Amino acid sequence: MNVRVQGRLKPFRTVTFDERNNSVQLIEQRLLPHEFRIIGTRDYRETAAAIADMVVRGAGAIGATAAYGLAQGARAFAGSDRRKFRQHLARVFETLKNARPTAVDPVNAMNQVRAAMAGGDTVEEQQALALAAAEEFANEDVEHCREIGRHGARLIRKGANVLTHCNAGWLAFVDIGSATAPMYAAQAQGKKFHVFCDETRPRSQGATLTAWELAQQQVSHQIIADNAAGHLMQRGRIDLVIVGSDRTLGRTGEVANKIGTYTKAVLARRHGIPFYVAIPLSTIDWNLKSGFDIPIEERHESEVLGAWGMVGNSKSAGRTSNAERRGYVRVANPGSGALNPGFDVTPAELITGIITPAGVFKPRELWARKKQLGWKK
Amino acid sequence: MNVRVQGRLKPFRTVTFDERNNSVQLIEQRLLPHEFRIIGTRDYRETAAAIADMVVRGAGAIGATAAYGLAQGARAFAGSDRRKFRQHLARVFETLKNARPTAVDPVNAMNQVRAAMAGGDTVEEQQALALAAAEEFANEDVEHCREIGRHGARLIRKGANVLTHCNAGWLAFVDIGSATAPMYAAQAQGKKFHVFCDETRPRSQGATLTAWELAQQQVSHQIIADNAAGHLMQRGRIDLVIVGSDRTLGRTGEVANKIGTYTKAVLARRHGIPFYVAIPLSTIDWNLKSGFDIPIEERHESEVLGAWGMVGNSKSAGRTSNAERRGYVRVANPGSGALNPGFDVTPAELITGIITPAGVFKPRELWARKKQLGWKK
Repeated sequence: MNVRVQGRLKPFRTVTFDERNNSVQLIEQRLLPHEFRIIGTRDYRETAAAIADMVVRGAGAIGATAAYGLAQGARAFAGSDRRKFRQHLARVFETLKNARPTAVDPVNAMNQVRAAMAGGDTVEEQQALALAAAEEFANEDVEHCREIGRHGARLIRKGANVLTHCNAGWLAFVDIGSATAPMYAAQAQGKKFHVFCDETRPRSQGATLTAWELAQQQVSHQIIADNAAGHLMQRGRIDLVIVGSDRTLGRTGEVANKIGTYTKAVLARRHGIPFYVAIPLSTIDWNLKSGFDIPIEERHESEVLGAWGMVGNSKSAGRTSNAERRGYVRVANPGSGALNPGFDVTPAELITGIITPAGVFKPRELWARKKQLGWKK
Repeated sequence: MNVRVQGRLKPFRTVTFDERNNSVQLIEQRLLPHEFRIIGTRDYRETAAAIADMVVRGAGAIGATAAYGLAQGARAFAGSDRRKFRQHLARVFETLKNARPTAVDPVNAMNQVRAAMAGGDTVEEQQALALAAAEEFANEDVEHCREIGRHGARLIRKGANVLTHCNAGWLAFVDIGSATAPMYAAQAQGKKFHVFCDETRPRSQGATLTAWELAQQQVSHQIIADNAAGHLMQRGRIDLVIVGSDRTLGRTGEVANKIGTYTKAVLARRHGIPFYVAIPLSTIDWNLKSGFDIPIEERHESEVLGAWGMVGNSKSAGRTSNAERRGYVRVANPGSGALNPGFDVTPAELITGIITPAGVFKPRELWARKKQLGWKK
């Protein structure tokens, strides 16, 4: 999408690859919304660390980052010994896979890269195929999001109030986003609507990333505390919920997504409000048989015990002064600990529809349509 | 309750009155958990400001503060003209009442003070009666909380995991607290249990005040993001919810409480988890006929757009260094606004029981038991 940098609109992707320097290029998302900066990783370990530390986050974005990271790792291998190359690749794969356990995009993306590499004979050929496959994954991700927008835009009626949770925007993908795709498409059609962004504690991706995105694209929006959606639903102020997913089970229609998503689905059901999940195909897990088998990442308690914000002296400043810097502040009682599950699982029965690049389906329809949805035996 | 101050345990009440200086004495709750400080208000306007600015907050605590504030205002009146005294008192009453619109305790408490004043003939007599009635309200509040504990302790089984929202602890009352009263009573009985404290954005009263209280009293607890309770309930990790209330409708059993309470009630119902509300009698509104008639305070968006924490250089310090100070940090996208309703309303059907000083009742039983529950025609 376009970002205003030094007063001018420029198109950006969340994840790209610098071939000459063998470097994955990422928007440093932890600095947003206060600073827009692109960073480059020097090797696959740095790429895995960027995923684990949430420099880059979001289903499609970490999928593309892992795909590029695998290509980066492959391209860094010197020599022509194919057995050693395979061993090296296995290490790279595991390192990138383990960076975030709940999401399935990295594994699906890297499997796609590995499958493409099988077409090459020499190490050199396979290195070239790896990068081409990673580029293909990234381009596919963009295309998928565009199709999600095409199918999802009709769900947003004129004047609708839409709730979204966390960030499933273009920053969470290579471009366009999943949950935001119908919004951007509806806006392009000239529809007026309003978005409530859950702030999404503890990492506040709604208040920082989604709000930043929507502001850049001039979509009408307000941030709310995660506590407020129930009240707004009760008072008839929310018409529709659209969220993303980090892993959607193709067999059951269950959706793992950022902690708090399940709560919004329960609330939506109570108020008869449609609850949609937007996903590219790489987010589907065709193997797991139950949502209880999805590993739920437990993150560090410091995320819950504090917050990241702009720290400084210039209270009145609309702009960031030199005295300000982004920093962590401790909010909670210093003697207390926290429990910090990063994701939750929403059962199929609470989901009105899954917006995919191939159309909008009931969650339990996915399995019957598996060929259409990219399932491979 | 006892607070460790300079290494020694000392008993404190949240709200007291300094007769000689005609000053309401309050724990400055915005400094907790980082600093324990008592402040005094010089006149009723400062007392009202302390309520509005949340130096003191919580149903019973602002009830007692308003009662003392009315006495403080009455006692500051010079002269013996009863008509002017009445006019003055009406101004004091309105100022204190308008400080927080959703709660009913201040109005109930001040009505109690006014009724007592009717027993005096001269201004001087009425001034003395006002202070005595305010003291009586405060003592009653403590007694009510003690009774809530007595009735509620049996609801906490050995090994239970209890969820609470916001702070309905002793800091929210004159002492002991409402939602915490059963916990403190169960602990005194030697029961072991664990409390999950919702952090309770945007003001984080759970992470700061409830966690501080429970840590002081050595009750096992963990802070969770407001987003996490649904997931924990789904995984069977919460057995019981106990919250407080800012206004409970005696006619319908509806409960207004801190934003997010309704969400927890909806989640508890889905999982078959008992949901209790603990209230002293002053929290009951016998007049309103519908929860939709309760004014829902809209607070400033800055609460949602940022957080209050310890700001400073000494990251490694377990203690607060001199370089650290409590401050506001901006978290959200600077170009975005927020919507910040402070309270929500939970319908009777979602409430398992109301824990009152007179026993535990179904919410729709309150009206039938109105005489027992302090209703006056």
